[in-house]
Amino acid sequence: MPAEPASLIAAYAVGDALADAVGERAWLAAMVEVEAALCRAAARVGLASAAVATAVTDACAVAAADPSVLDPDAIRAASLDGGNPVIPFVAALRAHVRATAGAEAADHVHRGPTSQDVLDSAMVLVVRRAGAVVAAELARAAGAAVALAERERATVMLARTLLQPALPTTFGAVCAGWAVALVGVRDELRRTVTTLPAQLGGAAGTLAAFGDAGPAMIDAFASELGLAAPVVPWHADRHRVVLAASALAAAAGTCEKVAADIGLLAQGEVAEVRAGTGGSSAMPHKRNPVGVIPVRAAARRAAALAGAFPAAMAHEHQRALGLWQLEWQTMADLLAATGAAAAHLADLVAGLDVDRDRMAANLADQRGLVLAEAVTEHLARTGTPRSEARRLVEDAAGAVAERGTTLADELRRLGADTATVDVARDPAAYVGAADTFVDRAVTAHREMTPWDLA
Amino acid sequence: MPAEPASLIAAYAVGDALADAVGERAWLAAMVEVEAALCRAAARVGLASAAVATAVTDACAVAAADPSVLDPDAIRAASLDGGNPVIPFVAALRAHVRATAGAEAADHVHRGPTSQDVLDSAMVLVVRRAGAVVAAELARAAGAAVALAERERATVMLARTLLQPALPTTFGAVCAGWAVALVGVRDELRRTVTTLPAQLGGAAGTLAAFGDAGPAMIDAFASELGLAAPVVPWHADRHRVVLAASALAAAAGTCEKVAADIGLLAQGEVAEVRAGTGGSSAMPHKRNPVGVIPVRAAARRAAALAGAFPAAMAHEHQRALGLWQLEWQTMADLLAATGAAAAHLADLVAGLDVDRDRMAANLADQRGLVLAEAVTEHLARTGTPRSEARRLVEDAAGAVAERGTTLADELRRLGADTATVDVARDPAAYVGAADTFVDRAVTAHREMTPWDLA
Amino acid sequence: MPAEPASLIAAYAVGDALADAVGERAWLAAMVEVEAALCRAAARVGLASAAVATAVTDACAVAAADPSVLDPDAIRAASLDGGNPVIPFVAALRAHVRATAGAEAADHVHRGPTSQDVLDSAMVLVVRRAGAVVAAELARAAGAAVALAERERATVMLARTLLQPALPTTFGAVCAGWAVALVGVRDELRRTVTTLPAQLGGAAGTLAAFGDAGPAMIDAFASELGLAAPVVPWHADRHRVVLAASALAAAAGTCEKVAADIGLLAQGEVAEVRAGTGGSSAMPHKRNPVGVIPVRAAARRAAALAGAFPAAMAHEHQRALGLWQLEWQTMADLLAATGAAAAHLADLVAGLDVDRDRMAANLADQRGLVLAEAVTEHLARTGTPRSEARRLVEDAAGAVAERGTTLADELRRLGADTATVDVARDPAAYVGAADTFVDRAVTAHREMTPWDLA
Amino acid sequence: MPAEPASLIAAYAVGDALADAVGERAWLAAMVEVEAALCRAAARVGLASAAVATAVTDACAVAAADPSVLDPDAIRAASLDGGNPVIPFVAALRAHVRATAGAEAADHVHRGPTSQDVLDSAMVLVVRRAGAVVAAELARAAGAAVALAERERATVMLARTLLQPALPTTFGAVCAGWAVALVGVRDELRRTVTTLPAQLGGAAGTLAAFGDAGPAMIDAFASELGLAAPVVPWHADRHRVVLAASALAAAAGTCEKVAADIGLLAQGEVAEVRAGTGGSSAMPHKRNPVGVIPVRAAARRAAALAGAFPAAMAHEHQRALGLWQLEWQTMADLLAATGAAAAHLADLVAGLDVDRDRMAANLADQRGLVLAEAVTEHLARTGTPRSEARRLVEDAAGAVAERGTTLADELRRLGADTATVDVARDPAAYVGAADTFVDRAVTAHREMTPWDLA
Repeated sequence: MPAEPASLIAAYAVGDALADAVGERAWLAAMVEVEAALCRAAARVGLASAAVATAVTDACAVAAADPSVLDPDAIRAASLDGGNPVIPFVAALRAHVRATAGAEAADHVHRGPTSQDVLDSAMVLVVRRAGAVVAAELARAAGAAVALAERERATVMLARTLLQPALPTTFGAVCAGWAVALVGVRDELRRTVTTLPAQLGGAAGTLAAFGDAGPAMIDAFASELGLAAPVVPWHADRHRVVLAASALAAAAGTCEKVAADIGLLAQGEVAEVRAGTGGSSAMPHKRNPVGVIPVRAAARRAAALAGAFPAAMAHEHQRALGLWQLEWQTMADLLAATGAAAAHLADLVAGLDVDRDRMAANLADQRGLVLAEAVTEHLARTGTPRSEARRLVEDAAGAVAERGTTLADELRRLGADTATVDVARDPAAYVGAADTFVDRAVTAHREMTPWDLA
Repeated sequence: MPAEPASLIAAYAVGDALADAVGERAWLAAMVEVEAALCRAAARVGLASAAVATAVTDACAVAAADPSVLDPDAIRAASLDGGNPVIPFVAALRAHVRATAGAEAADHVHRGPTSQDVLDSAMVLVVRRAGAVVAAELARAAGAAVALAERERATVMLARTLLQPALPTTFGAVCAGWAVALVGVRDELRRTVTTLPAQLGGAAGTLAAFGDAGPAMIDAFASELGLAAPVVPWHADRHRVVLAASALAAAAGTCEKVAADIGLLAQGEVAEVRAGTGGSSAMPHKRNPVGVIPVRAAARRAAALAGAFPAAMAHEHQRALGLWQLEWQTMADLLAATGAAAAHLADLVAGLDVDRDRMAANLADQRGLVLAEAVTEHLARTGTPRSEARRLVEDAAGAVAERGTTLADELRRLGADTATVDVARDPAAYVGAADTFVDRAVTAHREMTPWDLA
Repeated sequence: MPAEPASLIAAYAVGDALADAVGERAWLAAMVEVEAALCRAAARVGLASAAVATAVTDACAVAAADPSVLDPDAIRAASLDGGNPVIPFVAALRAHVRATAGAEAADHVHRGPTSQDVLDSAMVLVVRRAGAVVAAELARAAGAAVALAERERATVMLARTLLQPALPTTFGAVCAGWAVALVGVRDELRRTVTTLPAQLGGAAGTLAAFGDAGPAMIDAFASELGLAAPVVPWHADRHRVVLAASALAAAAGTCEKVAADIGLLAQGEVAEVRAGTGGSSAMPHKRNPVGVIPVRAAARRAAALAGAFPAAMAHEHQRALGLWQLEWQTMADLLAATGAAAAHLADLVAGLDVDRDRMAANLADQRGLVLAEAVTEHLARTGTPRSEARRLVEDAAGAVAERGTTLADELRRLGADTATVDVARDPAAYVGAADTFVDRAVTAHREMTPWDLA
Repeated sequence: MPAEPASLIAAYAVGDALADAVGERAWLAAMVEVEAALCRAAARVGLASAAVATAVTDACAVAAADPSVLDPDAIRAASLDGGNPVIPFVAALRAHVRATAGAEAADHVHRGPTSQDVLDSAMVLVVRRAGAVVAAELARAAGAAVALAERERATVMLARTLLQPALPTTFGAVCAGWAVALVGVRDELRRTVTTLPAQLGGAAGTLAAFGDAGPAMIDAFASELGLAAPVVPWHADRHRVVLAASALAAAAGTCEKVAADIGLLAQGEVAEVRAGTGGSSAMPHKRNPVGVIPVRAAARRAAALAGAFPAAMAHEHQRALGLWQLEWQTMADLLAATGAAAAHLADLVAGLDVDRDRMAANLADQRGLVLAEAVTEHLARTGTPRSEARRLVEDAAGAVAERGTTLADELRRLGADTATVDVARDPAAYVGAADTFVDRAVTAHREMTPWDLA
C-alpha cells in the first residue's frame, strides 16, 4: 500500500509497485525490451543472424538490469533536442552494445524502426504492466466489497434514492453492487489493455526499411513482445489509446462512486459506517471519514487527465507535432491516479466499520413507510384488488405522518389482517433478491479472468 | 445524408435516420417497448397471465405506432414535476391500456419496476439503435476510404512526420490507415453498445416487488428486449454508460483525424487533394475545403459531451439526484454529433479529388532526399558496411542542399554504382508494405462483424 | 420561468427569454445589426454617404423585424456550402436592400468585412444579450438566497465539514455564503461578457479593403455596436471566448454547489429543508427534492460544453478550419444551460421550506460537543491556561460519548463554573460573525453593478 | 529556462523558478507565512500581544528559511491521516515555536483558523507567486513576438484562411497578433490571480473562535498577507479558483495557437520559418520543428487539468470531502504546465528563423490572385461601377488559372489601365493596417501593467 503521497499537497499516495511501473525507469526498460525484440524479430525473418539477436538481447538484458548503463539523466536532458527520448536512448544503447557485443551487434540495434515505434510499443508494455497493478488494486477493492457483502448479507438497511429513504435493502446487496461494478471495470480494463497491439511502421509507416520482410517483421516483433500484431501500423490512429484511457477513467469513477457513498453513509446524521478516524484540533468529537478523500481526489484527477485524449486524436499525417508527445506522461499519470483511487478504496472498504444498530434504527425511524409497496404487493397477491390495496396503504401511510404512529399501527386501525400488519413490520422480508446478488458478487469476483503480470 | 444543420449556427447536420433515432419520439417508443417487455416477462415467470401480456403488448404497439396516444407535449411538460418523464408517461400509457384493454391489463402496466429501470433500459435501446446508425456511417466512411485506397494504390506520395517530408508512401496506404482506424472504432462501438445490458432493479435495486421471481424476472425481461441480462442491477453503476460514451468519442476523434489530414493535404502549398468548393466573395480564387469543417466541429463537440460522463459517476446511493438525469440528453447529443462527424466524413472522403501530379511533384521537390534511408539500406544489403553507407549518403544528402542537385546526382558524383543511383531515383520502389496494407484494409472492411438494426 | 424542457429527455428547461436570446433568430438579427453598423461606420469614416447608411440601416431594421425577409430555412440549408451562414445571409440581405433601397445601397452591404467579422461580432452581441438574461437569473437566485438569509438570520444550525457535524452556524450565514457566491459569478460574468470587443479585420485581418480608413473603421464600427474596439482584430485569438465560456461554467458550478447542498440538507436523515414534492408511485412517503435535479444536470452540461473551448484555441493561421465553427452552437448551448441552472436554482431557493425545529434538533443531538471550541475559548479568555482548558474540555467531551450525557453535564461534573457550563449550552452564542455575513450579503446583492439589456 | 523535463517521458520542461514556486517547499513556506500573518493580525485586533506576534513571526521566519525545522517528509507522511497536511504542519510549527520562543508564543500559533483557512490562503500565495512567473514567461513570449513583429514589419506574406491562401498580410502583423494575444492572456491572468482574496473562516466559516473580532480579524489577516479581504469566507465557494484555472488554460491555449501556427509555417511545402533543428537518424534531410512539441503538449495538459475544476465545485456544506483536496496538486501542475508552455514558446519565437524569400515566393506563386479584392476596391474607388469592377476581376482571375499567367497579365489583356495593373502586382500595397497593428503590439507590450513578485 502507498506509504505517503508524492508531495505534501498531493491528496493521494501511489503505491511503490505502481509508481515503479509507470516511472521513467520502467519506460526505459520497456524501450530496451522493444529494441531487443526488434533484433530477435529481425533474426526470425532473416534480416539478422541468430548470433546477433542473442548478443543484442543479452546486452539489452544487462542494460535493463544495470542502472549505470543507460543514464536517465543524460537521456532526459537530451530528449527535447530531438522531440523525444528515443534518439539519445538509442545512441546510448548502441554504444553499450558496441562496447559489450561488438560493432556488428551494435549495427543491428534500432535497425528499421522509427522513434514512435519504440515509444508506442514501450507505452503498450508500460500500460499492460501498470494496468495489471491497477487491476490488482481494483480486484482487491472488489474482494473487500465481496467480503463485506458476505458478512453483511443479513444486515437490513435503508435503500436511498434521490437522497431520500426508499425501500429496505441489505448492506450485503449494496456491497455486492459495489463489488460487481469494480469487477466490471477491472475486466474491461483487462480487455482493453491486453488487446493493445505492438506498433511497428518505420519512418513512414510502410515498413520500407525491412524490404519485403515488413509484414513478417511486424508479426515476429509482436510475437516477441507477447503482444497482438496490428492490422496495419497505428502510429497515427490513436483510438486504442483513447479507449485505454477511458477504461481507466471509468475504473476511477467507479471507485469514486463507492467512496462517495461511504462518505454519505458516514455522515453524522446517518452514521451507518465509520471510515477513518480523522480528528480535528478544534473539534474533538469529529471522526472524519478521511479515507474517502484520496479516492475522490485521485478519481477526479483521472477523469480530467483522460479528458485530454479524445480531443487530441488529430495527429497530423504520419506523426503528430505535439499531440502524440502529450500522451506519454499523461498516460503514466492516469495509470497512477487510477491505481491510487483503487488502492485507497480497497483500504477504505477493508477497514470499514459498520454500525448495524444504526442501520436498523434509521430503518425503524421510517415507521414502516418504506414497506408501503410491500404491503400493497402482499394485499394484491392475496386477493385484494390492486386499486383497493393502494387506497388502503395510502390512507394508512398518510395517517402515520399525521399521528406519529407506524404503518403497522395504522393498518391495524384500518382493519388489516395480521399477516398484512406483519408485512408492515418486517423489512427483512422485503429485500427481494438481495441475497442472490451477494452470491452473484461472490461468483463474479471468484471468476474474474486471471491477469498475471506479463 | 443530412440535408441541413439543425440551426443556422450549427456547423454540422444530423441525418434524418439518426435524428429520428435519438429524438424524443424514439425514447418514448423505447419506453413503450420496455413496458410491454416487462409485462411479457411477468407472464413468463408467472406474475401475469399470457392474456394480459398479449393485451398489454398489443396496446403498447398501438401506443408506439399512433402518435396521438402518448402526447409528448404533455409528458414533457410534466416531466420536471417528478424529476423524470416516466411518471407522466406511465400514467398516460396506463390510461390508454385501460381504455383499450381493460382494467386488469392496465393494472399490470409498470408493475414492479422503478422509473430508472424504464429509462435506463430505454436508453440502452436508443443507444443500440442510434449506435447502429452511427456505425453505418462509420462503415460508409471506411468504405469510401477503402475505395480510395484501392484506386490510389499506386499513387506514390510524401509521408510527412512532425509536418515535415519524411519518406515516400502511397496515398493508398494512407487511405488504408484511415479505413482500418474507422473499422476499428466502428467495431469497438459495436462491441461496447451491443453488450449494454437491460436494467431492472425495482425501487431499491432488490427486485423485491417481484417476490421470489426477481432473478427470473430480470432474465426474462432482458430476453424479451433482446438484451443481455446484468449480473446485478446497474442503476448506480454507470461504468458501461461511460464506456459507450468513450467509444463514441473515440469514433468521432478518428473522424476528426482523417478530416484534419484532408485539410492539411488540401492546403494551397500542398494541394494534393481538393475537398469541396467553398468560395469566398472577397477571394474568387479560393477553393475552401469546407467539407472538413462539420467533421471537426462535430467531433470536438462529441469529445466535450463525452467528457461529462467520467466525472459524473458518483451516483448517490441507489439513485442519483442530478447526475443520472444528466445522461439522457447528453447521450442523445453525443450519438448525434458522432454520427454527424462520420456522415460528413463519408461524404468528404467519397468526394475527394486527388491530384496525383501534385503528389508526384511534391515528392520530386524533395530531390531524392526522402530516399536517403532507401539508399543506405540498399548499400548495406549489397555489402557496403553500414557505417560507410551512412557516411556516403550523408555526404551526398548534404551536397544536395548546397548545390541544388538531387540525391541521385550527388551519389553518382561520389561514385555510387548505377543500381544505387537508381534507388535514389525511384520512390515507388521504397513504399514497403504499402500494398499489403491496402489489401488488409479491404479485408478488414469486408469482414466487419455485421450489425443490423435490432 | 421555463415552462418545460426542450425534449422529453432534457432534464432541465430553458426560459423563453433565454431560448429566444440564443436561438437562430437572435443570431440572424445580430448579423443584421452588424451589417447595418458596418454601413454607418463606413459613412462615419467617409467610405459611404450618410444617405446610403440611413437607407441600409432602415432596410436592415425591416429585415430584422419582418421574419419573411430573411428566410432562416434557406440560409440554414445553404450554410454548409460555404462553411458558414454568412454567405447566403449576405446574399439575401443584399437582395432585400436592393429591392427596398436601390442598387447603390445594396452595393454598400457587407463591403469590406469577412464572414468571420460578421459572425464574431454577432456572437458578441448574442453573448452580451443572453449573458444579461443569465445574469438576471443568477441575480434572482442570489436575491432568493439573500431573502432567505435575512429570514433565517437567527436560525442556528449545524455547520458540517467533510460531511460531519462541526460547529454551530446559522442558516442565515449559509444562505449569505450562497448569495455572495452567486453575486460573485454574476459580476464576473458581467465583467467578462461586457468587455468582449467587436471584431473587424477583413479577409486577412489587415482591414485592407478599407484602404487607409481601417483603424478608424474598426473604432467607428465598435462604437456603432456599443462595443469596445479591439487593440487588433482577434479573429484567430480566442482567449476572450474561452474566458466567457469559463465565466459561464463557473456560474453554473456555483449553482450546482447550492443545489447539491440543498439536496444534502433535504436528506431523510437530515430533513432540515424540503425542496419540491416529487412523489413516487411505489413509495407514497417520498418527498423527493426534484428541484435539485435540473440545476445539477444543467450545470454539469455547462461544465462539459465549456471544456470544448480551451483545447480548441489553435485556430490555424488567420481563420480556423473547424475549431472556429465549433464555437457558435456550443456557446449558445452553454448560455442556455447556465441560464437554466440559475433559473431552476432561483426557483428552488425561493420555494425552499425550512424546518427550523429539525435544525435545532439536529444540533441538540450533538449534545453540546460542537461547542467544545467555544468552551475552550471561553476558558482561555477568562484566565484558564489554554492547555488546561483543552484538557478539561477533552475530558468532558470524552465522557459525553461514554455516558450519553451532554457537554454541559460533564463540565459541571468536572467542576466548571456556571458561565462555562452556559457556554456549552448555547450554540446561538457561538456563531461568530454570522450576522455580519448576512448584512454583507444583503449589501453585496443590493450593490451589484447594474446590467441592463443592451 | 527549463534545463530538462521532469522525466524521460515528459514532453516539456519546467523552469527552476516555476518548479520552485509550485513545489511542496513553496507551499510549506506559504503555510508558515499564513500562520505568522494570523498571529500578527491577532495582535492588531487585540487578541495577542505585540510581543507574541513578533516572537511567532521571528520563529516562522526561521522555520521558512531553515529546511531542517519543518520536515516535509514527516508532514507528507502524516498528511493522509487527517485528510490534509495542515495538522502535522501545525504540530511541527508549534513545537518549533515552543522551543525557540516559549510556550505562550506556541499557544498563539494557529489560534482560531481551520486547516482550510491555512491551505486556501497558502494556495492564493502560491498562485500569486507562481502566476507571476507564468506571467513573466508570457511577457517574454510576447516580447519575442513584438521584436519579431518590428523586425518583420515590411515582410509581406500570404494570409491563410481555412488553410488556403487568402490575401497578403505582413509577418509583422501576424506576429503583432500573437503578441497582443499573449499580452491579453497575461493581463487577464494578472487580474484574476491578483484579486484572489485571503481565506479565513474558522472551523465553521463563522470566525466564532475570534469572538467579536472576527470581521476585524479577516481584514487584518488579509492586510498582513497583502491580499484582498473577502466579502465573506469562501471556503465552499470555489468560483475564483475555477476562474484562475481558466485564465491559466486560456493562456496555455494561446501559446498553443502560436506554436501550432509556427508548425504550419515550418511545413516542408510552406517553409516560411524554421523552428529548431531536430534531426532524424533515418532522415538526414529533416529539420523537425521540435520546439513546437513541448508547447502543444504542455498546453493540452493544461487544458485537461483545468477541466477538473468546473465539475468539482459542489463542495459539500462547509468543507468538501475530496473535491477541495483535489485542487492543490492540480493547481500546482496547471501552473507548471502553463508556465512551461509559455517558456518554451518564448524560446521558440525568439529563435525563429524567418525565410523572407520563401514568403515572397509563396506569395508570388499565387499569381496575383490574392489581389483580386485589391483590384476591385481600386476600380470602385476610381469610378468603375462596383458590379462592373467585379466582373472584370472575375474574368481576369478565371483566365489566370486557365492560361497560367498572372492577374496583372490578364487585366492588361482585358484593357485595364496601368494603375490598375500595378495594383495587381503589388501585394505590399495591400496590407491595410498591418503597420498600425505592429505599432499597437509594441505599445500593448510596453504598457502591460507591471506585475512584480510579491
